[in-house]
Amino acid sequence: MLDTRAYLAKPTRPVDLSAFPTRYDGSLEKVAARAEFARLHARLVALEEVLYAEHKHALLVVFQGMDTSGKDGVIRRVFSGLGPSGLSVASFKAPSALERDHDFLWRVHALTPRVGCTTVFNRSHYEDVLIVRVNELVPRERWQRRYDHINAFERLLADEGVTIVKFFLHVSKECQKKRLERRLADPDKHWKFNPDDLETRRRWKDYQRAYEEALSRCSTPHAPWYVVPAEPRWFRDLLVARVLVETLSALKMTYPQPTFDPKKVRID
Amino acid sequence: MLDTRAYLAKPTRPVDLSAFPTRYDGSLEKVAARAEFARLHARLVALEEVLYAEHKHALLVVFQGMDTSGKDGVIRRVFSGLGPSGLSVASFKAPSALERDHDFLWRVHALTPRVGCTTVFNRSHYEDVLIVRVNELVPRERWQRRYDHINAFERLLADEGVTIVKFFLHVSKECQKKRLERRLADPDKHWKFNPDDLETRRRWKDYQRAYEEALSRCSTPHAPWYVVPAEPRWFRDLLVARVLVETLSALKMTYPQPTFDPKKVRID
Repeated sequence: MLDTRAYLAKPTRPVDLSAFPTRYDGSLEKVAARAEFARLHARLVALEEVLYAEHKHALLVVFQGMDTSGKDGVIRRVFSGLGPSGLSVASFKAPSALERDHDFLWRVHALTPRVGCTTVFNRSHYEDVLIVRVNELVPRERWQRRYDHINAFERLLADEGVTIVKFFLHVSKECQKKRLERRLADPDKHWKFNPDDLETRRRWKDYQRAYEEALSRCSTPHAPWYVVPAEPRWFRDLLVARVLVETLSALKMTYPQPTFDPKKVRID
Repeated sequence: MLDTRAYLAKPTRPVDLSAFPTRYDGSLEKVAARAEFARLHARLVALEEVLYAEHKHALLVVFQGMDTSGKDGVIRRVFSGLGPSGLSVASFKAPSALERDHDFLWRVHALTPRVGCTTVFNRSHYEDVLIVRVNELVPRERWQRRYDHINAFERLLADEGVTIVKFFLHVSKECQKKRLERRLADPDKHWKFNPDDLETRRRWKDYQRAYEEALSRCSTPHAPWYVVPAEPRWFRDLLVARVLVETLSALKMTYPQPTFDPKKVRID
């Protein structure tokens, strides 16, 4: 059985990304893994319904990773089929002028889930210690303080009822090359390609260092980071689904007790 | 000259509200005080314009106080006449269902000022450790953690460019009685009266204790609390205006340097 703890960035221990595989299949066969994923996905759909009905907890799921690491793909695979009333996906791009005129958590806080609901972040407040750090978009003394602000923010959410899980999709530089080339070869994928991504690719090591510091400083018991191998996709999907099912199961949610006796209600 | 430091809730020292006057005139005459207020108000208008033009800082001003302590009045007196493009007042009432479905800082964070602007909070996130505490609207272990969350939140704002000043309008129970009776006697003031306010009045001591803890734990160098005597109104207005002028002056703001030579620009 898949042990999700092996992929956890241990709180209080510095993260060395080279110690985590970018390609791993858990010694599983693809067919068996897909069957297990289907089972987990059905369980996730059921857990999400209880989350909505119980109206006590909220769930925030964060995805970060280099281009082509599979953020869009894993969100499509894992969250398709869940009740859309209780689900939303927030994709964070470069901040607008209005967003830049506020603190870096302002736009993120606004999109956190309400009780009973799930929000998925495709990129997140972590960009403010990733691209902002690598490209020095704000002075060092400003982004350096952001790790503490992120921890305090996630602590606030957790204390007030939000369960947080964060996934770093760990892709190798070679795999990114292969996937970018595939995008260039397919006209239907050209919309996903941006020549600026190559500049980000050139700063690979700086980004890995920035990710290591973010994962080291901001993986906490109440908001853990998981490092997910980006290849193969079927293992990535399986691992993410398994972590989510384990996380929601631990909440021991139940449907609320009716305030009426269903046997005594008469429908005329 | 008025020494505003005398009204500061000293960080790191427990606040004893009985040591702060609810009625004080600074040994001033009303006419002289009103003239000085007019001077300070003109200075405030000018400083706010530089704040807007420079587009570097933002200002958040918080008012808290028991009913009739003068929150509406001081906001009207001090902030009337400022450029409305850069100014907004947010009045916090009982939270909506959507707001209650988020952490207590969610609705507050959304209304923080953008760079160049001023936001005035008429009541604020402090209600979540005041009325919420006194009426036990959430369990003790939950509101107890909120002091730390408030401090982290205000630290975030300060680190990201927001200057914060907080005023507690300190009214005596006797003065409140007088002012409530005046409201009841004037049909044009009935809209300001709410019979529920009498329940809050009955819990006077509990509220004073709650305020003392909030002021003790959350007066910081970057987000200080000032304790303002509620009577007479002209001294209250003068003190608030003076603190704001001192606070904004300390930012050493300047109009931005033009990126063109105004002497060389020809208007056809």
